[in-house]
Amino acid sequence: MTEPGSPDLDVPGEGDEHATHGYITDKANYLARLKRIEGQARGIHRMVDEEQYCIDILTQVSALTKALESVALGLLDDHLKHCVVDAARMGGAEADAKVKEASDAIARLVRS
Amino acid sequence: MTEPGSPDLDVPGEGDEHATHGYITDKANYLARLKRIEGQARGIHRMVDEEQYCIDILTQVSALTKALESVALGLLDDHLKHCVVDAARMGGAEADAKVKEASDAIARLVRS
Amino acid sequence: MTEPGSPDLDVPGEGDEHATHGYITDKANYLARLKRIEGQARGIHRMVDEEQYCIDILTQVSALTKALESVALGLLDDHLKHCVVDAARMGGAEADAKVKEASDAIARLVRS
Amino acid sequence: MTEPGSPDLDVPGEGDEHATHGYITDKANYLARLKRIEGQARGIHRMVDEEQYCIDILTQVSALTKALESVALGLLDDHLKHCVVDAARMGGAEADAKVKEASDAIARLVRS
Repeated sequence: MTEPGSPDLDVPGEGDEHATHGYITDKANYLARLKRIEGQARGIHRMVDEEQYCIDILTQVSALTKALESVALGLLDDHLKHCVVDAARMGGAEADAKVKEASDAIARLVRS
Repeated sequence: MTEPGSPDLDVPGEGDEHATHGYITDKANYLARLKRIEGQARGIHRMVDEEQYCIDILTQVSALTKALESVALGLLDDHLKHCVVDAARMGGAEADAKVKEASDAIARLVRS
Repeated sequence: MTEPGSPDLDVPGEGDEHATHGYITDKANYLARLKRIEGQARGIHRMVDEEQYCIDILTQVSALTKALESVALGLLDDHLKHCVVDAARMGGAEADAKVKEASDAIARLVRS
Repeated sequence: MTEPGSPDLDVPGEGDEHATHGYITDKANYLARLKRIEGQARGIHRMVDEEQYCIDILTQVSALTKALESVALGLLDDHLKHCVVDAARMGGAEADAKVKEASDAIARLVRS
């Protein structure tokens, strides 16, 4: 639907008609990183299929985990900056709900 | 099926003729899980592309991280069971080197 | 200085002038948990001193790590609820700085 | 000071005659680090008691978690080097049991 890298998709609120949540600061960058992550997952599959040395496979798994973690932290930062800050400004139950939701997501990340 | 690399290097004693490192206990199972992991990575790419809700994307990232972690722990267990135990039996510098290598891989996993 | 459980210290935003950072929702609860964590650390020291079985020591280290993690997630939730939400309401550079600071702390937790 | 168990296996140079599991390579070093960890836990308790700034507390929690993690990785390395390697040499069910036990401890560490 949206071509990766199309430049104006992640401008929140300006002509961003079909995006559900236009909060992602640098979407093209995330898409490129996730493309790479998908390639890393495919590479690990191939390494197991070729029965490469276990320790080398584990090194690639650690690298992939770190890359994912870094994407997650970036998305979370964007989320705090936009959704949580906006909700805080509106106040009330909405602000509380957004903070709770963010805290739960952080707990899942810390524990995974 | 598996070609690359030199044959039967550390085959732990069971007619596992063409595997480079025939230590993986249930290869088909790992391949299926890694296929699924690749699909999860692709799904996260799509969610970002479609600008789905950040918290939902983070939930998928946590699930993918857990799936990867579980593959890594399985591979590490296989590695300890086969390569490290075999090296321990041979003893000497080889045993020490294998334990050091395993410890380093564990440290990378714990820290990633 | 402040007695654990003293009631009005952590009321955010109501006559909260002398608390350094009166954001902690249930201070007595945190203090009790941290007391327990200190005891767990002392217990691990004793286990190593008595050269108890390594795996049993590691089990205690994992339990302590989980207890700490849980305290950290609670404090972070309190922080988002109070400091970050308050800063968001004020807006401007202060809001940005608080979010950045929180994101950095989250990254340290996820990576530790 | 330490009583239980068998004598002076790998006592790092200090008449530590009767350890149960003399596998710890540099016990004095671990004891010093665990002492420091206990002090860090006490420091965090004090910071919460004094209601210091949440982010500063979280920074100390991350530092403590890292210190603990590093102790755990050291103990695990010692364990693999001694208990697991020894069990591997004996072979049989004992070797399998030790590897399983180590893998379970690693999984707890990775997940905590």
